[in-house]
Amino acid sequence: MSFERNIQLIIEYDGSNYCGWQVQKNGISIQEVLNKAIQKIMKEDICITGSGRTDAGVHALGQSAHFKTHNTSIPINKIPFAINSKLPKDIRIQEAIERDTDFHSRYSAVGKIYEYKILNNEHGSALDYNRMYHIRERLDVDKMRQAAKSFLGTHDFTGFSSVNSSVINKVRTIDYSDFDIDGTHIIYTVRGNGFLYNMVRIIIGTLMQVGKGKINHKDLPMIIDSKERTKAGPTAPAHGLYLQKVLY
Amino acid sequence: MSFERNIQLIIEYDGSNYCGWQVQKNGISIQEVLNKAIQKIMKEDICITGSGRTDAGVHALGQSAHFKTHNTSIPINKIPFAINSKLPKDIRIQEAIERDTDFHSRYSAVGKIYEYKILNNEHGSALDYNRMYHIRERLDVDKMRQAAKSFLGTHDFTGFSSVNSSVINKVRTIDYSDFDIDGTHIIYTVRGNGFLYNMVRIIIGTLMQVGKGKINHKDLPMIIDSKERTKAGPTAPAHGLYLQKVLY
Repeated sequence: MSFERNIQLIIEYDGSNYCGWQVQKNGISIQEVLNKAIQKIMKEDICITGSGRTDAGVHALGQSAHFKTHNTSIPINKIPFAINSKLPKDIRIQEAIERDTDFHSRYSAVGKIYEYKILNNEHGSALDYNRMYHIRERLDVDKMRQAAKSFLGTHDFTGFSSVNSSVINKVRTIDYSDFDIDGTHIIYTVRGNGFLYNMVRIIIGTLMQVGKGKINHKDLPMIIDSKERTKAGPTAPAHGLYLQKVLY
Repeated sequence: MSFERNIQLIIEYDGSNYCGWQVQKNGISIQEVLNKAIQKIMKEDICITGSGRTDAGVHALGQSAHFKTHNTSIPINKIPFAINSKLPKDIRIQEAIERDTDFHSRYSAVGKIYEYKILNNEHGSALDYNRMYHIRERLDVDKMRQAAKSFLGTHDFTGFSSVNSSVINKVRTIDYSDFDIDGTHIIYTVRGNGFLYNMVRIIIGTLMQVGKGKINHKDLPMIIDSKERTKAGPTAPAHGLYLQKVLY
């Protein structure tokens, strides 16, 4: 068996112009653009595997992925420069790390950090219209912050996942769930050992209902326990969401 | 003479997709897009006048402009909503202010604040590639900060303006010129009673030469006094520049 390198990449992207991470029939995916760029550099067929999918419009500051290659000619610290030279400007490799053969960007992950950015002003923003979710109605961030704490700990998140999800075990543990406020910017950060499909977007969609006074923050534990998708709030739009970091 | 309203607008825009503020033959200008949107709302021909031009790629958080209209049916607080409904997402009216008939967005202005955003890291940014100027070489911000102070006060800025400039009086007063640092983000802020064509971009282009060690920060007063364009640094790229505020 020939020597194979296992290379992890930390990737930043603006999800606005893509159909999401995963290769799809209709639309250009981030995975596909990365595969093509890496193949040009490594001069062999490779297949990049991500820590998980992100939907169309979702951004990443630190998506993690890995690929295997027989190419030993490029030193690890030159790999980001080389691949970036073949990528569009809205996808950037920030780091490349040489890993053991059994490292897997998805199965080795022990957690993830997401951010959701809300712009709470009157007229939105010309510069951030696809980077933050604009909401005109004044949000009660104190109540949202209290509600956010209800997600801490280990819960069955059936009510906070897409009804189409095929995952069987929906128990996840969240150890950080809080807001930062900077003027009209309301930033939600959540860290957990794993997230179901659409889970962060349903969590923040629910917290925004709390901010609008449509859900009482004291009802959050009951809503979580009910495991009913219809009791939670709507799925918040993709363009406010950022995959911040994958933890190993 | 019929009653005429004089309406000031505070405008945010992402300059990436425009040929600049000013109407031009080749390319779509921000002024032109605004004129069309406002005409639809006011139901008469109007002509918007800005506080000054911004070049292609330059952004604004608070460009100021005014137009005159005979339309009295729309209350001032509804005007931003009405015009925004006819604008692309990368141009937003943030405020409309009813002004006296002699208010002029350019001639009434007493000063302006600009920001220039530099990203000083290895691989740039997928999310900010047209919002910040990326420079890989490590900049000595302490030296840049010392150099920035040389611009304070009243100077003849002939050496810091485009050689094509037709303006006769090139004396301007700057009362704020400093850097803010946030990790890899280096933000330059400058406030003055007026700026010549390309002046901010040449100032920051010169300060970056100081940061690279190519110009000694102690030479700045001499470079300013020389009034020679060739002694100053290059014109920095447009996409790091933001018109922050116009002062009245």
